[in-house]
Amino acid sequence: MSDFKYLFEPRSIAVVGVSDDMGRPGSQAVRTLLKNGYEGKLFPVNPKYEQFEGLKCYRSVAAIEESVDLVVIGVPAKGVLSVLEEAAGKKVPFAVILSGGFRESGPEGIAREQKMLTIAKQAGMRIIGPNCLGFANIHSGVYAAFGSITREPKLKPGSVSLVTQSGGFGYSIALGCAEAGIGFRHVIATGNESDIDTVQLIDALLADRETRIIVAYIEGTRDGRALLDVGRRALAAGKPVLLWKGGVTEQGARAAASHTASMTGSYDFYRAMFKQTGIVEIREIHETVDYVKAFEAEKFPAGNGVAVMGVSGGSAIVFADAGEPEGLNLCDLNAQTQERLAQVVPNIGAIHNPIDLTAGYFSAGNESKLEAAVRATLDDSGVHAVCVNLATTGSAGSLVAADVLSRIVSTTSKPVVVFSSTPASITGAALRVFASAKIPVLSSPARAAKALAMLVKYRRLQSQLKQASYATSRPGGTTQYLSEASGTLSEAESKKILASAGIPVTQDRIVNAVNDKVFKELKAPFVVKIVSPDIPHKTEIGGVKVGMRTRTELEAAVIDVMRNARTRCPNARIEGVLISEMVQGGFELIAGVVNDPVFGPVVVAGAGGIYAELMKDSACRIAPFDEQTALDMLDELRCRPILNGARGKAALDVKAAAKALAALSRFAWENRDRVREVDVNPLFVLPDGVVAADALIIMQDKAGAPAQKQLLAH
Amino acid sequence: MSDFKYLFEPRSIAVVGVSDDMGRPGSQAVRTLLKNGYEGKLFPVNPKYEQFEGLKCYRSVAAIEESVDLVVIGVPAKGVLSVLEEAAGKKVPFAVILSGGFRESGPEGIAREQKMLTIAKQAGMRIIGPNCLGFANIHSGVYAAFGSITREPKLKPGSVSLVTQSGGFGYSIALGCAEAGIGFRHVIATGNESDIDTVQLIDALLADRETRIIVAYIEGTRDGRALLDVGRRALAAGKPVLLWKGGVTEQGARAAASHTASMTGSYDFYRAMFKQTGIVEIREIHETVDYVKAFEAEKFPAGNGVAVMGVSGGSAIVFADAGEPEGLNLCDLNAQTQERLAQVVPNIGAIHNPIDLTAGYFSAGNESKLEAAVRATLDDSGVHAVCVNLATTGSAGSLVAADVLSRIVSTTSKPVVVFSSTPASITGAALRVFASAKIPVLSSPARAAKALAMLVKYRRLQSQLKQASYATSRPGGTTQYLSEASGTLSEAESKKILASAGIPVTQDRIVNAVNDKVFKELKAPFVVKIVSPDIPHKTEIGGVKVGMRTRTELEAAVIDVMRNARTRCPNARIEGVLISEMVQGGFELIAGVVNDPVFGPVVVAGAGGIYAELMKDSACRIAPFDEQTALDMLDELRCRPILNGARGKAALDVKAAAKALAALSRFAWENRDRVREVDVNPLFVLPDGVVAADALIIMQDKAGAPAQKQLLAH
Repeated sequence: MSDFKYLFEPRSIAVVGVSDDMGRPGSQAVRTLLKNGYEGKLFPVNPKYEQFEGLKCYRSVAAIEESVDLVVIGVPAKGVLSVLEEAAGKKVPFAVILSGGFRESGPEGIAREQKMLTIAKQAGMRIIGPNCLGFANIHSGVYAAFGSITREPKLKPGSVSLVTQSGGFGYSIALGCAEAGIGFRHVIATGNESDIDTVQLIDALLADRETRIIVAYIEGTRDGRALLDVGRRALAAGKPVLLWKGGVTEQGARAAASHTASMTGSYDFYRAMFKQTGIVEIREIHETVDYVKAFEAEKFPAGNGVAVMGVSGGSAIVFADAGEPEGLNLCDLNAQTQERLAQVVPNIGAIHNPIDLTAGYFSAGNESKLEAAVRATLDDSGVHAVCVNLATTGSAGSLVAADVLSRIVSTTSKPVVVFSSTPASITGAALRVFASAKIPVLSSPARAAKALAMLVKYRRLQSQLKQASYATSRPGGTTQYLSEASGTLSEAESKKILASAGIPVTQDRIVNAVNDKVFKELKAPFVVKIVSPDIPHKTEIGGVKVGMRTRTELEAAVIDVMRNARTRCPNARIEGVLISEMVQGGFELIAGVVNDPVFGPVVVAGAGGIYAELMKDSACRIAPFDEQTALDMLDELRCRPILNGARGKAALDVKAAAKALAALSRFAWENRDRVREVDVNPLFVLPDGVVAADALIIMQDKAGAPAQKQLLAH
Repeated sequence: MSDFKYLFEPRSIAVVGVSDDMGRPGSQAVRTLLKNGYEGKLFPVNPKYEQFEGLKCYRSVAAIEESVDLVVIGVPAKGVLSVLEEAAGKKVPFAVILSGGFRESGPEGIAREQKMLTIAKQAGMRIIGPNCLGFANIHSGVYAAFGSITREPKLKPGSVSLVTQSGGFGYSIALGCAEAGIGFRHVIATGNESDIDTVQLIDALLADRETRIIVAYIEGTRDGRALLDVGRRALAAGKPVLLWKGGVTEQGARAAASHTASMTGSYDFYRAMFKQTGIVEIREIHETVDYVKAFEAEKFPAGNGVAVMGVSGGSAIVFADAGEPEGLNLCDLNAQTQERLAQVVPNIGAIHNPIDLTAGYFSAGNESKLEAAVRATLDDSGVHAVCVNLATTGSAGSLVAADVLSRIVSTTSKPVVVFSSTPASITGAALRVFASAKIPVLSSPARAAKALAMLVKYRRLQSQLKQASYATSRPGGTTQYLSEASGTLSEAESKKILASAGIPVTQDRIVNAVNDKVFKELKAPFVVKIVSPDIPHKTEIGGVKVGMRTRTELEAAVIDVMRNARTRCPNARIEGVLISEMVQGGFELIAGVVNDPVFGPVVVAGAGGIYAELMKDSACRIAPFDEQTALDMLDELRCRPILNGARGKAALDVKAAAKALAALSRFAWENRDRVREVDVNPLFVLPDGVVAADALIIMQDKAGAPAQKQLLAH
């Protein structure tokens, strides 16, 4: 938080735009600062007032005698720039611009925002906003904000920081969490993000000791790579980031365009980013609440084995139903565990998983039995987490469970979560015990299962990240071939480049006529394709022939293909024909690279062939990535089982496919400034190895701006 | 409710098994009946007591002088049967058996449950339970129950009835609803359902005027057809049924098996049932709350056009993101609507959908503008429902919105829902206004979208149901062919039967050698297959040849196939060869019938061919069904776009495919007592029509018990 220290802990704040109208943002900010006991110096600014809320009111920012760490600007848009210039003159390091009337409001606003940035840049001033609700540091009572952030209910201090592009909706997430007893550190509504953006703030919060969990709502980001990077650093640091991406559907993106004019970006790429960073995707307010509760316990399952115990069989079933699709496993309990359980669980109960403690088990006098049962379960090496279903257990029974479980959790590293459906008005005492022991209490067994499953995935990604190598340096790599290339490269050029990048390609030669060399160097059967920069769709004009085995057949095919091209495309420049070894058997994948304006190069892989393509069977990851990530990516394809060898056929070389995709990702990353698009179609996965049978590389326009492009298989 | 009138409104209740131990179920029941002001006569029974809770206590049920409508039995399992016999002798019409120790507890319990049923059947007595929490009629203070149902918080009277096989979890659903202000009519925990089951209770609740919405939790049902039937009648009656099916995963089903020993059944078939009845599937407690709130408003969108308006752009985006995948459409507003909005929405707002009313719009003095804006939106013919996002709006603004909206909703048939994230402790006054106007207030925009989408689907199914014909009578249908059939029928027999049922099949002849007739009657190219009851896998032994065009080719193929069969299967009975017209082009589907023990005949359709089969692309519906249902079913297949004509190919005859599936469903239904299984593989969908190129019918064993079978394409 060092860079932003005096933004979030300002020693003095000037608030410009106060007035007797308490609807005005500035007025709200000053009042809230006073009410919440802000301890620094506070300078209201309005030339018309001598005093405001008992404080001396200043004519202008320039008129303030002392130094100012933060200026909060709530004047109408037209007045913002002059205030900013004054603040710049006074070397104020930070401004929060609450006012709207900038980029979001048309050409005049766009120009205003540009000038705003110029002033700030020249002065080295950093800006939150404009067009935002501002921020609050809940721990220090700093409310550089207006609107809902300043209203009841007041958030209680805690370890969650929220960064949101949408003040109204983002603060709804905060209110949902607050209602569930969750406390906050910083709440920052960033609005237009002209200067300081969500990613920079997440980065700053990583360094803030008081922030343990970060929740963010964004509609878009300028720099997907920075998000990827900060997400990975957060995962490595063990500081969970929960991110809600708004505008992920066509209608949602259209609504977002008219909201903050954000570049919403492809949801597919965001989803890849979630998988590659451990940033946890959230899509509901109550889900955020559940996940924050789960993270606050700071315990992570070492695997997916869970045990469920309690007094409600139906709840255990619902837990299992929700957990299985998310990867949880109601594991078998070992013999020793079952023996220990048998000593403390009534005969009519069940000592297998789910463990049926029988009705009324949570009751005074049963503490030591309950403790023994839970400890036995936690001691089982196959159990990585435990869910205790209190279900409708009343106040006394819940308190017994809370006392026992809170004693136990201090002695285990395995997460324990509780399902209770009894209203807080009845179980209040128990809930306080659970809260102080950091035991998450969820309001449905399905939500308990989903929260545990999320923890399992988070922990798994964390250990994967430690193993992953994102090395991107391959000195003397492929760039030499690329240095002179431009436009759309031919199949032969493209394949040569990909081969040098480590992707196996079919052997081929460009010739004008069949010669002995072809027969010596290539193996029949053959494919013949016309080579011309002017014929993009070769098949359609009879420019492709396949399956030739003999010299006679091959010669006829070459003549045929040449004639077809000359007849059907009389003006095309013909450079010869490409004779390739024909690939037989295996399964056709397609692989490609899209150079996305937000995320940079992204590798897409999918099932090839007409049917699979129509079924939109594809997966993507942000480049570069390792083979394990490529394997995960292939696992997402619905056609994946086919690679294991369908109907008695030989298993195909999935590892080689993963290796090729990882190589493609490195190539795409290393050459991201030059390569706009790569299409490998098909990439044959064979029983032993892979081979690209056709490929196309499209270079960036000289301008260098990557063009937007749909996913290959969509 | 006529059959069960004195079960739910008993004029007198005997409670057997009361004692000073207030943990005893009988004691809890009596206390709760007294506390809740049950107005009928109450007879506690225990030979050891003279009095119980100020009431005369009876030696036995027989000793009660007056007539008894309901006996509540809470004695240990061993004592239940003698109590039941006494009650039978006294002609008590209804019993609730709270005690466990029956089917769920091993062989002794199974025998006890059998005896229990015999006693009840002979006496014409109906039973709830055993092994259950009992039931409560909240309106009349009838608590024939113990445990959580009798504890705080007391449910308030309302229009929702709950039927649940799991007392603990089911009552958790009730508590979740109660916490959200929802009131109840009946709460019935059915336990083992030895006699009265969930389906019968739903049926009874359809006739209960006080019940407007039915919520049920089941782990299984004996009779899926009865559920289908009651679901359709509920839909026709406009009485929503929300059903949670527990045990839908492998682990969930395993847990359920050890819980109520229910036959959980195939989740695929349950999902088909949901689609064919309008029974709304629920999978979360908060989802149940949202859906009940939405249904309580008793307004249904005539289409999927929704308008979103409010003060939070982010909330509108989140609404759109959640609504689009569920089929909602943020429709364009017409010019007139936009003109009307322009008059009351500030310039910096937005008068397109989502409508941005701008911050602070919900405020005193703005009532008439807000009213005009909402009315203009509701008047738009493309708008079928409106979501108003209050988001973090405070108490005063929320109250303004509540007043305005409650005035409006009484004058429109279109549903209006509200999203508010401000805690109830602050918006209490507004929430009361919303509640009395039956305006659902949801706690996230995503949940608002899902609730509206659910209403759209419900309404659509309701009108589809009205149009659907489930006519099953086709006099003189296919049964004549089937009358003598048994075992596994041959391809030729199977196809003949299916043809008579209205499913086009390939033309073919069984011969021993090629003759002129074949060439006259069939069109080349041909397929030749060996015909033998002893060779199930023809291809593997060289028993199939395809693509013959000339007589020479055909003769050679017949000889070849015969020789292969004789060589590879020397003991097989060879009945000849089948010569069929070979189907060319089109797309291969597979279709089949499974005769499920719970749901009876179910039709499954899927993509054919090796890849699609591995990708598990299939859909199912319970037979019989109409062509529209078959079209819906085909729409669920991922391969569906291929039928529209892939890559410039001709569109295929989807209607004919639907017709064939509907015909197959009628055949399966009419012959459900005889046919165990049908496999049509492949069913070719052609540009003009469909044709079954191979088929197999397997008859029921004489015992008549349908065998369980996996879905065709799984």
